[in-house]
Amino acid sequence: MKKKIYYHDTDCGGVVYYANYLKYFEEARTELMSKAGLDLSLLQNRGVLFVVRKVEVEYKSPAKYGDILEVSSRIEKLKNVTMTFSQSIARDGQLLVKALTQLVCINKEFSPQPIPEDLALVLKRFSPE
Amino acid sequence: MKKKIYYHDTDCGGVVYYANYLKYFEEARTELMSKAGLDLSLLQNRGVLFVVRKVEVEYKSPAKYGDILEVSSRIEKLKNVTMTFSQSIARDGQLLVKALTQLVCINKEFSPQPIPEDLALVLKRFSPE
Amino acid sequence: MKKKIYYHDTDCGGVVYYANYLKYFEEARTELMSKAGLDLSLLQNRGVLFVVRKVEVEYKSPAKYGDILEVSSRIEKLKNVTMTFSQSIARDGQLLVKALTQLVCINKEFSPQPIPEDLALVLKRFSPE
Amino acid sequence: MKKKIYYHDTDCGGVVYYANYLKYFEEARTELMSKAGLDLSLLQNRGVLFVVRKVEVEYKSPAKYGDILEVSSRIEKLKNVTMTFSQSIARDGQLLVKALTQLVCINKEFSPQPIPEDLALVLKRFSPE
Repeated sequence: MKKKIYYHDTDCGGVVYYANYLKYFEEARTELMSKAGLDLSLLQNRGVLFVVRKVEVEYKSPAKYGDILEVSSRIEKLKNVTMTFSQSIARDGQLLVKALTQLVCINKEFSPQPIPEDLALVLKRFSPE
Repeated sequence: MKKKIYYHDTDCGGVVYYANYLKYFEEARTELMSKAGLDLSLLQNRGVLFVVRKVEVEYKSPAKYGDILEVSSRIEKLKNVTMTFSQSIARDGQLLVKALTQLVCINKEFSPQPIPEDLALVLKRFSPE
Repeated sequence: MKKKIYYHDTDCGGVVYYANYLKYFEEARTELMSKAGLDLSLLQNRGVLFVVRKVEVEYKSPAKYGDILEVSSRIEKLKNVTMTFSQSIARDGQLLVKALTQLVCINKEFSPQPIPEDLALVLKRFSPE
Repeated sequence: MKKKIYYHDTDCGGVVYYANYLKYFEEARTELMSKAGLDLSLLQNRGVLFVVRKVEVEYKSPAKYGDILEVSSRIEKLKNVTMTFSQSIARDGQLLVKALTQLVCINKEFSPQPIPEDLALVLKRFSPE
């Protein structure tokens, strides 16, 4: 996923505000799910939601106004109730930020539930063996 | 309402990003309603919602990191279905931004509806004459 | 310009937060300038900055999660010191939001200055007659 | 630090968007520094900046519209070049989110530098022995 940086992405330090990378990571996860044929709104209608339980972000180098970033995503771990994305943001091949994000599958009452088997099968295709 | 400016409020131009003032205006409207005893969540349960239909903002002078702003709000016009807030943001008495915001009263199906009479009475107390 | 709506664009009313459209309008203005060959960072190095002085937004219908929006922009008025963009956001041809945004040309000391002639010529190509 | 949740803090899942907690953590760190007598703008003039190098966030339970949150912060580790904040967000005594944030001290050229001794002394007062 490509992401261009505009004024609203930056702060008065002259670089992208640290929380904003989490927005790009969200967008990229949605696009990965989408590429797998999974639409989060439709899943929600089925009573299947994913919420972030944990996030670990390492900031190596800042992105700036006008940058065009490359966001890469893959599913690192797929467990019964959770899945973990490994993601990174680069500019011209230089790694800027990387993140691990653990999502937990919940139902409409916000209680954890196992990821439905059919979804797990689809998601498995995007995880390393 | 007092509002302190942090990094996330600013952009790489070194000043508060122009869209962010609309957040402070939202906060101040909520606080005004709150002072009138009106809780937006409870109103929503009653099927009474307010959405912004129109906003006009004039930017006189920029706010900067570390500023402590003063947001003033009053109901300028109260009509059958709409109400208009007049708001301004100042720093040490200097006017920085002013806005007119028209809200429309809607029901749960997102259709316009008259502002219920009891609410209108409460809101009238905050409008000039 | 196409714009896809993600979770971070929405609020708990289930629709796009009213201030966020101003971000999309900013992005679209930048893209229009860019198409005209104008890079805002380079202009800034030349001591030419544009800041928003006034914005008027009309909200007709809300955008929702997953929507793909079309943002249209053109320069409506080009004056000595200011220019005004007319912009609109639509979904599948339906108008959702429209805006008029007046920008003022300033120098590094934040004082208004005439838009340099060469820029004015370039911008004129994007204004009606 | 108290923090009230408004519409712009939430997303269409009905809860606070996961990246927004990072804004509250930033605000609370600034307030802690401020209580220690340290003003980030003044430090910047001295050529002392702090940027986030790493953040780990655990989301236990979501905050909602209208919530009043309590953000607690303390300096967990103070090293030569970095310092680590331990922070948490609670509502009515219930822990919602906790975070570890490592900041690195940099100079105006964005290169790491030791935290100046006088600052280190001040900060030490806010770290557990």
